[in-house]
Amino acid sequence: MCEANAYLFENGREELLLEQVDKVIPQQGEIILENIFGQRKIVKAKIKEMALVDHKIILEKI
Amino acid sequence: MCEANAYLFENGREELLLEQVDKVIPQQGEIILENIFGQRKIVKAKIKEMALVDHKIILEKI
Repeated sequence: MCEANAYLFENGREELLLEQVDKVIPQQGEIILENIFGQRKIVKAKIKEMALVDHKIILEKI
Repeated sequence: MCEANAYLFENGREELLLEQVDKVIPQQGEIILENIFGQRKIVKAKIKEMALVDHKIILEKI
């Protein structure tokens, strides 16, 4: 499967937010994350970087 | 491999921008796309939606 783990970058560290994320939808200063199990997290953040081959989505607070 | 294809959503259609994208880096109103072959495209756009299981990154012009 080709989902990725989403991390929040804060204070120089990456904190795991949600595993096996499928959908990433930016919306009005928030990022909606939805994983393959249907779990959702909405985070006040922006996308810092995605590295799909490494299965990583890195967000940072706005 | 878990890269995705990047499309630009315009006039209700998705136009292929770059195949097999690994890195996606938003930067000052632009999106830097880099694929597994080291090809880069910089697009004045924002991320509309990503669906990783479907290998799709959809951008739209700002």
